[in-house]
Amino acid sequence: MGYDIENKDFINDLQKLIKQPSISYSGVGITDCANLVAKIMNKVGISTELLSIKTSINRNIAPLIYGEIRSKSNPNGKTLLFYNHYDVQPTGPLHLWKFHPFGGIIRDGKIFGRGSADDKGELMTRIKAVEYFLRNTGDVPCNIKFIIEGEEEIGSIHLPNYIQSYENKFKCDAIVWEFGYIDPKNRPIINLGMKGMLFVEITAIGPSVDLHSSLAVIVKNPLWRLVKVLNSIYDEKSNKILIPNWYGDIKPLSLEEQIFLQNQPSFDEKEFKEKYNLGNLLVSGHNIRKSLSLFPTCNLSNISTNQDKKNHVNTSIPSIASAKLDFRLVPNMDPQKQFGKILNHLYLNGFHDIKVKYIHGLSSSRTSFKSPFVNIVKRAAETAFIQKSVINISSAGSGPMSLLTKSSKIPCIAVGCTSIFSNIHSINEFASIDFLQKGKNLIINIINNFSSYWKNKM
Amino acid sequence: MGYDIENKDFINDLQKLIKQPSISYSGVGITDCANLVAKIMNKVGISTELLSIKTSINRNIAPLIYGEIRSKSNPNGKTLLFYNHYDVQPTGPLHLWKFHPFGGIIRDGKIFGRGSADDKGELMTRIKAVEYFLRNTGDVPCNIKFIIEGEEEIGSIHLPNYIQSYENKFKCDAIVWEFGYIDPKNRPIINLGMKGMLFVEITAIGPSVDLHSSLAVIVKNPLWRLVKVLNSIYDEKSNKILIPNWYGDIKPLSLEEQIFLQNQPSFDEKEFKEKYNLGNLLVSGHNIRKSLSLFPTCNLSNISTNQDKKNHVNTSIPSIASAKLDFRLVPNMDPQKQFGKILNHLYLNGFHDIKVKYIHGLSSSRTSFKSPFVNIVKRAAETAFIQKSVINISSAGSGPMSLLTKSSKIPCIAVGCTSIFSNIHSINEFASIDFLQKGKNLIINIINNFSSYWKNKM
Repeated sequence: MGYDIENKDFINDLQKLIKQPSISYSGVGITDCANLVAKIMNKVGISTELLSIKTSINRNIAPLIYGEIRSKSNPNGKTLLFYNHYDVQPTGPLHLWKFHPFGGIIRDGKIFGRGSADDKGELMTRIKAVEYFLRNTGDVPCNIKFIIEGEEEIGSIHLPNYIQSYENKFKCDAIVWEFGYIDPKNRPIINLGMKGMLFVEITAIGPSVDLHSSLAVIVKNPLWRLVKVLNSIYDEKSNKILIPNWYGDIKPLSLEEQIFLQNQPSFDEKEFKEKYNLGNLLVSGHNIRKSLSLFPTCNLSNISTNQDKKNHVNTSIPSIASAKLDFRLVPNMDPQKQFGKILNHLYLNGFHDIKVKYIHGLSSSRTSFKSPFVNIVKRAAETAFIQKSVINISSAGSGPMSLLTKSSKIPCIAVGCTSIFSNIHSINEFASIDFLQKGKNLIINIINNFSSYWKNKM
Repeated sequence: MGYDIENKDFINDLQKLIKQPSISYSGVGITDCANLVAKIMNKVGISTELLSIKTSINRNIAPLIYGEIRSKSNPNGKTLLFYNHYDVQPTGPLHLWKFHPFGGIIRDGKIFGRGSADDKGELMTRIKAVEYFLRNTGDVPCNIKFIIEGEEEIGSIHLPNYIQSYENKFKCDAIVWEFGYIDPKNRPIINLGMKGMLFVEITAIGPSVDLHSSLAVIVKNPLWRLVKVLNSIYDEKSNKILIPNWYGDIKPLSLEEQIFLQNQPSFDEKEFKEKYNLGNLLVSGHNIRKSLSLFPTCNLSNISTNQDKKNHVNTSIPSIASAKLDFRLVPNMDPQKQFGKILNHLYLNGFHDIKVKYIHGLSSSRTSFKSPFVNIVKRAAETAFIQKSVINISSAGSGPMSLLTKSSKIPCIAVGCTSIFSNIHSINEFASIDFLQKGKNLIINIINNFSSYWKNKM
């Protein structure tokens, strides 16, 4: 089967999308970007609605784009849902980017820019796959829905509200998640689940204003206090979270999963370490892939004081010091319950002066090996990338998958075309144009396989 | 004796000085400010030279203002030297200031702005004290020198080079240091010494770019590593520096100093705690003043990653994490030797991957109780402020005093008119206009007492 790739049109539309900032963290460009995505979808022939919700708190809530196209030939058949997002992470320091983060510049077969990979590139493969069917057959072989949210990068904070308000629009029989990685050997990685997330801020309070550091001999420094607190939470040497019973609720693996893990291909440790100039990893060999899929994390991305970074006052006692920690969770860790364990730990260790804020939390989700959707996606990926795929029990990443799968009841698989070295969430994010094309073919294959599977069942 | 205060002229000139930024950290306005100070001094009748030096490294070095006025009546008599600086600390976040930091706005008897207290206000009291003598007598009663540097807030990094290049200009018989505090009971604090300083940066290196924090399960996070390192350096609970032998070189107090300390007035702990909304201090009662004068510190003012603060990426593994620590030193701690102890400590604890940068270092300095200059200054201060003074063996602050006193050979006293609550180095720095006037009187008295002392000796 020869695909009509329409490469130029694909890249033009993706460039337009990258040029339109959509930073959910600050709100910059969110509404404009939602309108642009809807316009691109309408052009293809997908009908769209910009959904909105109201909450009791007067907040700016990003609109959610709902897209739908029903199969004329099989309108009462099964429905495939694509979950994506149009918002992006902030850019980080502009001067570190080789090309402007909102430029969409193409070099050496790559398209650079914030969102080129995560998630505008992936989104385009899905829209353009639908276009392929409409252009070539005037129809789609199954019903297709799009849920494209604008707050994924800030923890999908209103997705539960959207699901509650528009329950019917989320009804489907299988879900393709927003992204999927391609490993250094060009093998598509198929993730059957995602980790959950608990994102917290820990704050120590000092004097009412920053004080001259000569007073450090009598005034307690909240940054030193914070160091003490953090040191009680995680031990970097043993890579252990020290909060009592942190690991206590983790669901043991089934025998089936254990056997599967034994037979996974090994992670390309050497290439990964060279790429990022790393010494020893926290785990090695066979344990890398196992850790990525199965282990919870406790990451510290930032410690801040209320001093201005550019006008940095060299020697002072900061009046406040805060740390942001993101904990990845695995089944059956409940974010609220894990948060309680943190509070308890701090209380028992005498940190009564420390404030802890629950920023957001998400449970993990996993689709069973036994679901027929696994094989549908596997065959689609291996045909598109002309490579054996790698199946993971779970992605190392987090997302609101559990909200859409209704606690893993609907099969949901994360698969896509993002190189593992795409610098997502970092500077110089890019997407490989070759992979984008293969990614579009992957989605075409999924739609075909999904439709055929259910036709054969009838 | 009734002084001619010329309040308006004083305040006008100080406002001009505040309006001229002079941030040595960034270099903003430094040369313009040096010229403005020289202009103000020339107007008064003090001859000035803007000294410059060359170093092997092509750096922007702030000019040093040398001022001199010889006594016509006693040209071969003793020389009093005023050490000040025209540079200021960065402003910190602009939005936190009540009035613009470079505005010189007057409210409720206070003049607000960066440098209003530290050190432009103090400098003006000295220039205007000289003006007082010239206007009223056409002469000064002793020889007077001014050394006004432009890099005090960045550790006086080139002062040693200036002293080496212009040795004669630094010759004198007594020195009045750049500042002095007024305590909450309006008592002038007379400091006979200053602490030294060791300023270092400790850095942990991670991946070559910030990585998505889902990889935290396999990639070591340099910020966690830094927390571990910092936790090994200082224990906030016991307020102890944990580096082996850190306190080993401290010079024991003389019996005379010990007796003196027993008889010091107590520190106003309650008012200080209320002012800055503080709970328990690290020490209490009698030990506060003792700690301020005698104890070394280990302060942590900032922990940074290379992420941009405003465009904060919420969940990533930073590629680099650094902490800046300022250690105040007391006699006889040598900054280079103390730095060696840090390196040794890190090496012995397995932190071989950690980089430590010596940013700058200064030794401490103390003038003996027995120096006649102590009584000269004491009487001057008590007359000007109509209050008993408080004598400290040393200021809690640091400065390059040891460079000018040639290791405490020339008597040098820090005395001035800065309220202890002036927010120096912080937002909303201000100087009390009442104190500025009294500060000018203080300097007039010092010049008079110093001249009389040596006349009586002849």
